[in-house]
Amino acid sequence: MSKKVIIIGSGAAGMTAASTARAKCPDCEITVFTEDEDISYSSCAIPWGIEGKSKWTDIVMHTPEFYEKERNIKVYTKTKVESVDDASKTVTANGTAYNYDSLVIATGATVFVPPIEGAKLKNVFVIRTVRDGKNVEEALKGAKNVVIGGAGVIGLELAVSLKNMGKDVTVIEMMNQVIPRIADKDMADNIQKHLEDMGIKFVMKAPIQAVNGTDKVTGVTADGKEYPCEVMIFATGVRANLDIPKALGFDVGQLNALLVSPTLQPYKRGRLVPDIYVAGDLVQCESAIMPGATMSQLGSTAVKQGSVAGNNAVSSEKKLFGPVASPWVSFIGEKQIAGTGLSEGLASWYGIDVAEGKAVGLTRARYYPGGKELIVKVLADKTSHRIIGAQIIAGEEATGRIDWLTSAAVNGITAEDFLVRSENAYCPPTSMVKDVVISAVEDLCKKLAQ
Amino acid sequence: MSKKVIIIGSGAAGMTAASTARAKCPDCEITVFTEDEDISYSSCAIPWGIEGKSKWTDIVMHTPEFYEKERNIKVYTKTKVESVDDASKTVTANGTAYNYDSLVIATGATVFVPPIEGAKLKNVFVIRTVRDGKNVEEALKGAKNVVIGGAGVIGLELAVSLKNMGKDVTVIEMMNQVIPRIADKDMADNIQKHLEDMGIKFVMKAPIQAVNGTDKVTGVTADGKEYPCEVMIFATGVRANLDIPKALGFDVGQLNALLVSPTLQPYKRGRLVPDIYVAGDLVQCESAIMPGATMSQLGSTAVKQGSVAGNNAVSSEKKLFGPVASPWVSFIGEKQIAGTGLSEGLASWYGIDVAEGKAVGLTRARYYPGGKELIVKVLADKTSHRIIGAQIIAGEEATGRIDWLTSAAVNGITAEDFLVRSENAYCPPTSMVKDVVISAVEDLCKKLAQ
Repeated sequence: MSKKVIIIGSGAAGMTAASTARAKCPDCEITVFTEDEDISYSSCAIPWGIEGKSKWTDIVMHTPEFYEKERNIKVYTKTKVESVDDASKTVTANGTAYNYDSLVIATGATVFVPPIEGAKLKNVFVIRTVRDGKNVEEALKGAKNVVIGGAGVIGLELAVSLKNMGKDVTVIEMMNQVIPRIADKDMADNIQKHLEDMGIKFVMKAPIQAVNGTDKVTGVTADGKEYPCEVMIFATGVRANLDIPKALGFDVGQLNALLVSPTLQPYKRGRLVPDIYVAGDLVQCESAIMPGATMSQLGSTAVKQGSVAGNNAVSSEKKLFGPVASPWVSFIGEKQIAGTGLSEGLASWYGIDVAEGKAVGLTRARYYPGGKELIVKVLADKTSHRIIGAQIIAGEEATGRIDWLTSAAVNGITAEDFLVRSENAYCPPTSMVKDVVISAVEDLCKKLAQ
Repeated sequence: MSKKVIIIGSGAAGMTAASTARAKCPDCEITVFTEDEDISYSSCAIPWGIEGKSKWTDIVMHTPEFYEKERNIKVYTKTKVESVDDASKTVTANGTAYNYDSLVIATGATVFVPPIEGAKLKNVFVIRTVRDGKNVEEALKGAKNVVIGGAGVIGLELAVSLKNMGKDVTVIEMMNQVIPRIADKDMADNIQKHLEDMGIKFVMKAPIQAVNGTDKVTGVTADGKEYPCEVMIFATGVRANLDIPKALGFDVGQLNALLVSPTLQPYKRGRLVPDIYVAGDLVQCESAIMPGATMSQLGSTAVKQGSVAGNNAVSSEKKLFGPVASPWVSFIGEKQIAGTGLSEGLASWYGIDVAEGKAVGLTRARYYPGGKELIVKVLADKTSHRIIGAQIIAGEEATGRIDWLTSAAVNGITAEDFLVRSENAYCPPTSMVKDVVISAVEDLCKKLAQ
């Protein structure tokens, strides 16, 4: 009899798990349950969907019909899983019990909306699903003033998209910098300045106290002042969806996400749970930089975990999901900002004394037209001299460079070793003869030698 | 008394050595001798200088006057060093003997022109110096047909520049592919096709037999056929300039370049030579991929070596120059091609049995506008599974990715480990959610498992 695989969740993690399981096991019976109406899309794309830069029909890579027809995967959309019983190995949805041999839980995360007055008023949104995006797009028609709560990368990408659409955009942030936690203040301030130059307004160090209005939102109060708006969007970070794992009694980690083994199996009172795998935003990861827990909650991580979970759900040859450095990149206005490993803030959380090197240059040779500013900052542990993180701001070509620095950090390379062992490809239209990454590490070595 | 440093050669290696020595030793007496009339420029930039995309005055970063005034470095241009005596520690030039405490030899390499009839006719050029570039620029006025001998990266970049200028361009290559030796045939053929689509003509597997003409060149004979032209340019690779080292009796390696220690000191009958350092295209390097000799001859390598040689010339705290993977990148037409480590051809030279993985994708998410094709090929040693090389063709963003793969190869990562330990930064405008680099290594792992 063919093996039955059930997957809960249809985001990057869930659908990658489904497709991986299918590729590994042509005759398995694979079923996906999701509360969402769309599947297999990138949440990261929603700002550009709203702006109209990408079409909604393109953002949704595949429909349920595609999965059924092309991959023989049955997808139940708008379907809430009512319960899971790991003893009888059944999932109940639509009042029906479905048996499984292997279960993948990929229920993701939900935008955290602070429990304040008015947060449920009309024209107050989060953006997480394509449906959310379409709802915002609709509400924006005729709206002039928009408030975005939260200056993380999604909030900032959205701010640019709305500004491009001609809206008057105000971003309200609780902390004293944009992209708090993962970017350092000097790098964040560079980006904030860039957005201010575009006409986006910022209200910093201002916790949102209330969303005002009777039926629809008319303004947002933060730090005692009101900011009028017709649309308000929360981009205040996400929290793992743990309803199902908690109902099953699975162990939750110190970061309020699910503890998993390298095979991506959950634990129940310390013991590995058989035949259940977990992938995506609800997983608590191990840091590849320093021993300790970390959250990743990136689309790229979800795909990688989905691939491991999908494989392990059907194959006895288990794959492993390793610790993460969580490189990230965002395209904000005309600038890319990217980071990897620990920021200064995260390093202090681990109790690490940090040295930092920084260099400013161009993405091309100085004499070749079109070069854009490239700022690289690299952090090392002052004791071990190991590279523990990096951040880049550039008009182009940040992504490969941050992946390069990620590789160095994950492999435990010291700043001094990096200089001896690293080389950069060079031609005038694509880099300086000594890449700015190398110059930043040279500066770092100087600081470490002081 | 202040230390006297003499540097022979004013390219990337020589001038980096001079500036590094100055930075380390404010009161040293630093003198540079060069046969060239311009100093401190990138040979790689010459195709764009000829095309007019970059100005000659921009390509030459600094003048001798700048070095004298700003860095207190005396530069003698158009000055041939007649002899070096390492016993008395003197350099003779312009009939004068100059004493040195430390000597840096950075005499570079010269374009190899095959010893054939007509190679010295008028309007037959090599491109190595800014003077060469200006001479070609002048000769091209009124010329319609140009033959380029050699389809390496410089030959191809030049072909595109001349095509952009409206010339009829024919490239004649001895081997059966463009970019021989460092690119694999499948990748090279992709680039050749791209250039053919632009209207550049190729004559392959055709050794150049003669350059024809009485005064000026009128055509080139290759493989028995004549190709008419008014200008002919040899881009046939370079050979180390070893006159001075050979006169000094320094040991030359099996690749016809100078043997050096990690401190970049030469050897004389197996013994390290004190107080002399070498940097740039005349150096024989060690491979970072496999134990063995290799040539690097890249601008980026020259700068790195110049920095080590310049430091060691003045400081007792010696720096080391490590083995090289020699990542390279070239911008040819609308495509970037980049490579690192061993190609299939170089791997077979080392006797390595190679597995290869390949993936084709985009530089951005599929639904985000403007994404360009991205082809990644990764090679591993079939026995050890270590990544030994990679090549990339992309419309944008190849450079950082090849530096990333260089880091993996140099650090001895296996293909399987790469999948567990590598992460890629992702946002729709700058990458696919699973970067094509990762997909290529996945394909490689499949091949290795077969």
